[in-house]
Amino acid sequence: MQKASLPKGTRDFSPQVMARRNFIVDTIKSVYTLYGFEPIETPAMENLSTLTGKYGQEGDTLLFKILNSGDYLKKADQDALNTKDSNRLISSISDKGLRYDLTVPFARYVVQNQTEISFPFRRYQIQPVWRADRPQKGRYREFWQCDADVIGTISLICEADFIDIYHKVFTTLGLTNYQVRINHRKVLEAIAKTIRFESSFTDLTIAIDKLDKIGWDGVSKELISKGIDASNIAKLKTLLTVQPFNESTINQIESQLIDCPEKTTGIQELRQVLAYSNLQNIHIALDLSLARGLDYYTGCIFEAIIEDSPIGSVSGGGRYDDLTGIFGLKDVSGVGISFGLDRLYDIMLHLDLFKESIQQTKLLFCHFDSEGQSHCLTLANALRNSGLTSVVYPDNKKINKQFDYANKSGFKWVAVVGDNEISNHTVQLKNMETGKQEEVSQDSLIEALS
Amino acid sequence: MQKASLPKGTRDFSPQVMARRNFIVDTIKSVYTLYGFEPIETPAMENLSTLTGKYGQEGDTLLFKILNSGDYLKKADQDALNTKDSNRLISSISDKGLRYDLTVPFARYVVQNQTEISFPFRRYQIQPVWRADRPQKGRYREFWQCDADVIGTISLICEADFIDIYHKVFTTLGLTNYQVRINHRKVLEAIAKTIRFESSFTDLTIAIDKLDKIGWDGVSKELISKGIDASNIAKLKTLLTVQPFNESTINQIESQLIDCPEKTTGIQELRQVLAYSNLQNIHIALDLSLARGLDYYTGCIFEAIIEDSPIGSVSGGGRYDDLTGIFGLKDVSGVGISFGLDRLYDIMLHLDLFKESIQQTKLLFCHFDSEGQSHCLTLANALRNSGLTSVVYPDNKKINKQFDYANKSGFKWVAVVGDNEISNHTVQLKNMETGKQEEVSQDSLIEALS
Repeated sequence: MQKASLPKGTRDFSPQVMARRNFIVDTIKSVYTLYGFEPIETPAMENLSTLTGKYGQEGDTLLFKILNSGDYLKKADQDALNTKDSNRLISSISDKGLRYDLTVPFARYVVQNQTEISFPFRRYQIQPVWRADRPQKGRYREFWQCDADVIGTISLICEADFIDIYHKVFTTLGLTNYQVRINHRKVLEAIAKTIRFESSFTDLTIAIDKLDKIGWDGVSKELISKGIDASNIAKLKTLLTVQPFNESTINQIESQLIDCPEKTTGIQELRQVLAYSNLQNIHIALDLSLARGLDYYTGCIFEAIIEDSPIGSVSGGGRYDDLTGIFGLKDVSGVGISFGLDRLYDIMLHLDLFKESIQQTKLLFCHFDSEGQSHCLTLANALRNSGLTSVVYPDNKKINKQFDYANKSGFKWVAVVGDNEISNHTVQLKNMETGKQEEVSQDSLIEALS
Repeated sequence: MQKASLPKGTRDFSPQVMARRNFIVDTIKSVYTLYGFEPIETPAMENLSTLTGKYGQEGDTLLFKILNSGDYLKKADQDALNTKDSNRLISSISDKGLRYDLTVPFARYVVQNQTEISFPFRRYQIQPVWRADRPQKGRYREFWQCDADVIGTISLICEADFIDIYHKVFTTLGLTNYQVRINHRKVLEAIAKTIRFESSFTDLTIAIDKLDKIGWDGVSKELISKGIDASNIAKLKTLLTVQPFNESTINQIESQLIDCPEKTTGIQELRQVLAYSNLQNIHIALDLSLARGLDYYTGCIFEAIIEDSPIGSVSGGGRYDDLTGIFGLKDVSGVGISFGLDRLYDIMLHLDLFKESIQQTKLLFCHFDSEGQSHCLTLANALRNSGLTSVVYPDNKKINKQFDYANKSGFKWVAVVGDNEISNHTVQLKNMETGKQEEVSQDSLIEALS
């Protein structure tokens, strides 16, 4: 006998969990759909050549690799095999891996289908991704991303759309205490020039990115060690304060930055996004300390958090000018965001936001003998033909066992059919939520349920 | 530069394909839901110990195995490594694989969650599975199964439910020319006794299973070579003829079989399924030549085909008495069916059953300048707030380019806003399907679209 178990970092989803996850997914889908995004799906497996080198060196080690079929050792790198070099052997015994995110497969999709796509192309994609990360609270080896991207336009209307999408998704989910943080890659570059940061731009963003962990004192120490003087540290501190995303904040930041092409573009684009956006409310913040994913983002950058929740960001995104370049399609600008389904789920559970009524309304027919059961089958079919979920208790068991099952399995309604009910053409209908029970004629059963 | 490509046997799904696939999936989901089935999901990866040995020797070689992370050669079987024995090495360098079907993961799920499940448990599961099969027309390495099972009852009401489910799914999809074929494992065993088949029962089913390929002549030759005499061959031929599933067919078969416990049970169960079933129509056939998956089926067996289609079975299923036994939960009977999504899709495409209107209705706002575009943004937001999908063309391009985009991207409606329309508070609304265009006031736009 084997023990039933799952690989670490992976999970089963029960009907109750599925109902809740589907509520989140359906919400995101319907908002994406309102803004004209359409679904695509890509395979779980991609060629390793598509995935490798796209997520940094650490990312490469976190890819799940699939062993080639058949006699895979025959074509293996014999040197690597003899020296037992695991890393070097990989490329000769594995040519496929599980997707690590939805962005690279999307870029690959766009390039591969470029002749059939009419640009600007608005797609959404909600699928699992896999990372061989160390599993820990809130971090899984299989988790779901919900991406939307527009590719093939530089129009900042798209950025404004995404801000609206954030608002609609979070308020529909009941996550009213959300904050969308915005930054612009070019404004960050202008900041580097303003504070005369002589090292690499990446060093500055790495330092800034540590704000959450080591606080301002830690960051300023690190920057001083890199030769930034006190007055510039002070300037930086003012700039990095999170502020409302409005005209006066943008003006103020503009006045604090030295003139350079990056400032001109960055400030102008932020101003345009603000002008296009439907929303200028307390939930949208300008956060120049936001430095995520700068490897490929080139314009606006987004991050969304839920305040008072123990989990960090639930969504990120931004504009990238050359995502498809690596697969041979140059100069196609795009912008997108991605929600983490599992993080949204964990936060909503933590905040107790799932309504009990998310599961399907359903009715269980209970009976005392085979005759009653046969009668129930006919009634159940009539209900189903009217679109109502119903189940006939399949076995001949005591009525309290049947009620017990109805309770545990989340049936809202129970209809009991005995000899009296058969001759009266009725059922005893019980609402399991309120406990109320009444005799209802078979003809008015559908009515009584709605 | 890399070439954008996919692993063989895998596919991307475009928005158009997704809309069609979702139509099939939503149909199956809603029928399953009507009969009280609830969704679960299990991870793509399972422990290899869960999967290995469940699908026969060939199945084991078709499992996609995932290479262990890190320095996987360190813990590798050194003997297997030195002798370059690919097969023997696997278990020491890979402990996870991609799921091969949804049945084994479901059995694992039931055993692992047995204390939380109330039986009979009705679950459906619609997820991809992976097999390292040789890709060919209609056979993919990643494909979707749509399973429903009831576990924890021996009631034949479940079998009757599945017959009804077949009817509802196929007619909703427009596959009116379907046939559900039914057999019973015990009737097959009674046939073996009737024709005095002395070899193993498996040999008989293997021979019968070849009917499709080698015809009756081939099968009878094979059976004669195994010692069956001519009169028994003739008996078998009569028994294996596909007949309508009704009382008179069952009586007739009963009279042709010799008395044995298998006959008693098998015939009685078929009769009971017929009595429970809502449907006794031309689409349901008794096919005693159906011998699929006899390794674990123990009662009724189902197969569904679409006549006049180039693809064989689109669904199969049956009752199994001990699916969970291997994981330590004994004596739990279950019954289930599984639709092949990709086969249904291929058949519906072949029969031209997809309606063009499956995709979302959506509207594109077109404009002549920035002022018009800004105006469109406001109108688009109003439509979205009423639940209507709308997109503002993001760039400032010539109007015919914008119309061109609307056409190619499947927008049903185009609303054009120029200076006149802004001052008149109207839009020029064009139905791209009919070509009809009219000036509509902004206030009645929502009305005009519905």
